[in-house]
Parts: sequence; C-alpha cells; structure tokens
Amino acid sequence: MRILMITGDQAEDIEVLYPYYRLREEGFSVDVASIERRPIRGKVGYQINVDLSVKETDPSRYIGLVLPGGRAPERLRLDKDVLDIVRFFFSNDMPVAAICHGPQILISAGVIRGRRLTGYPGIRDDIANAGAVYVDEPVVVDGNLVTSRVPSDMPPWMREYVGLLKKSL
Amino acid sequence: MRILMITGDQAEDIEVLYPYYRLREEGFSVDVASIERRPIRGKVGYQINVDLSVKETDPSRYIGLVLPGGRAPERLRLDKDVLDIVRFFFSNDMPVAAICHGPQILISAGVIRGRRLTGYPGIRDDIANAGAVYVDEPVVVDGNLVTSRVPSDMPPWMREYVGLLKKSL
Repeated sequence: MRILMITGDQAEDIEVLYPYYRLREEGFSVDVASIERRPIRGKVGYQINVDLSVKETDPSRYIGLVLPGGRAPERLRLDKDVLDIVRFFFSNDMPVAAICHGPQILISAGVIRGRRLTGYPGIRDDIANAGAVYVDEPVVVDGNLVTSRVPSDMPPWMREYVGLLKKSL
Repeated sequence: MRILMITGDQAEDIEVLYPYYRLREEGFSVDVASIERRPIRGKVGYQINVDLSVKETDPSRYIGLVLPGGRAPERLRLDKDVLDIVRFFFSNDMPVAAICHGPQILISAGVIRGRRLTGYPGIRDDIANAGAVYVDEPVVVDGNLVTSRVPSDMPPWMREYVGLLKKSL
C-alpha cells in the first residue's frame, strides 16, 4: 500500500513531513517524487530525500497522491510528467490530498473544473478561474479530492485523507 | 482533553510539530510551555508559538506530557519548574512521550531509575548511568513512558503514544 508524494525545492517543509510521517504511522509506504532524483530543500531548511524522478514514476503502483504546498508547486505545474501523473489519479478516481499551493498543480492539470476545493487564500481567484468553487474551510472533501489551506489545517486534512484512503482499499 | 508539550529554542522542529498536529488530529488540545512565554525558534528555523511559561503551568490540567528533542532539553533540564512538572506526571503514572534528547530532562528529573527506554544514541550512556536500561529500538513502551530515538521513529512513537493516551481516558 504505497502513496506518492510530489514536491520539490522550496516546499513548505511541514506540509511534506507531516503527511509523510502520518501516512507511515498508518502503515502506508510513502515515495517522494520530484523533477530530479536528488534531495530537495524545504523553504524553512529541512533536507528531504527523493525516492524517484517524476519521469520514472509509474502512478499505477500507488493508491493515493499527496501534493504539499510552499513554492514548489509553481515549478512542478510546468512539468508534463507531473501533470500526466495527476491526471492518472483523477481519471481513476483515486484519493488525492493537496494543501496550500498544491492546488496550483491541479489547476494546470485541468482536473478541477466543476469541483469544490480549498487552498492557500492567495490562489483563491486562480482556483475559481479554473472553473472550480473555492471554499474557505479548513478541509474540503469532494469525491476523491481532499484539500486544505494552510499548515494549521493539517489535522483535519489528514484525518479526512486517511479515512478516504482506508475506504478505498 | 489537554496535552502539555515542553520545549524551547533550538528544538528539533519536526519533533515539536509532528506530535503537535498529530495529537490535535486525534482531538486533543495541545499547549506548548517553555521557560518564557514568547515564541521559540526551532533549530531548522520554524517559529513556534508558546502558550505559557513553565512557571505558570499547572500540570494537573493535563492528561499527558510530550518532550521533543533537539538542543532545547539541555537548557530545560536546568529549570526547577520543568523538573517538578515532569515528576508530577511520573508520580501520577500519566502518559509521557519523549524523543531524541528529550530523555535528558527525564534523567535530571530523576524519574528513570530501573526503567527501560530509548533516546538519541549520543545520550545512551547518560541514560544507562541514570540507572535505566537503554534499548536501541524505534519505540520503547515502559508503563506510562513512550520513548523514541530520532525523527524517523516518529510514526511508531505516536502510534504507541496515542494508543496509551486513549487507554488512559
């Protein structure tokens, strides 16, 4: 039972580390993928190991996807492999968790039209312009998608996502 | 249902933040106490809010205690109020979680003689010299005490500690 996390340099450290440890606590394995297979540095300063590049990632090996925030998503959303992976999870209705600036990747993947979600307040208008409904709540669950706004939302974010993962098994 | 965490400047950021969010996810409130009531800075760089000073902390308001690591415990173990709080939890057999250098505080509080625990490898001999048995495992549960060595041990550390808290209710 393996979960994929896609992130990169300048990620919000705790939005990577909290779900990383939390999902392992629940018995899942977590692979961290990035543009290149080399350690990344969070914006506060943690060095985070990367297990594989997005180019070598086979999304069908995973049961869920996590997209942390920080400044990493602005770079990741430009990468075709990242967007293809995200579309795979959505077309198979598999559990996806995104927080903070993570939904920027969802916007660029073209997967949120008609959906309800949240994210960092500063990208609220971009979420709406992509055809989705921005909801200003700590956690928003819409089908396979669990979104939150900021680090202090992480407790309900992971509570809902862990629940959704377990239901999907 | 309120948990007390005692930490300070130069704490290992993730060892503060992971249990902080994790216990809130489980429905507990978490108060962070330090020598002074002012924000502290983790050694990687997170600023962490402090709810109260140890001097104004009434341990009887809490059902459990968490002692993160980093370089903070070396300062905290010199503070009489910190040690009195720790002794309160031990004399009432209430759930205590410590990780990394957190057990330095337990050594100075004089509460680990005859106990089995773990901690950061660099303080292994100090744990043994305090009359305890050092166990080199990811998590060691001995009665009310749940200890771990390093951040990568946090999944089993919190799995055991959350279980112990729930049993204690």
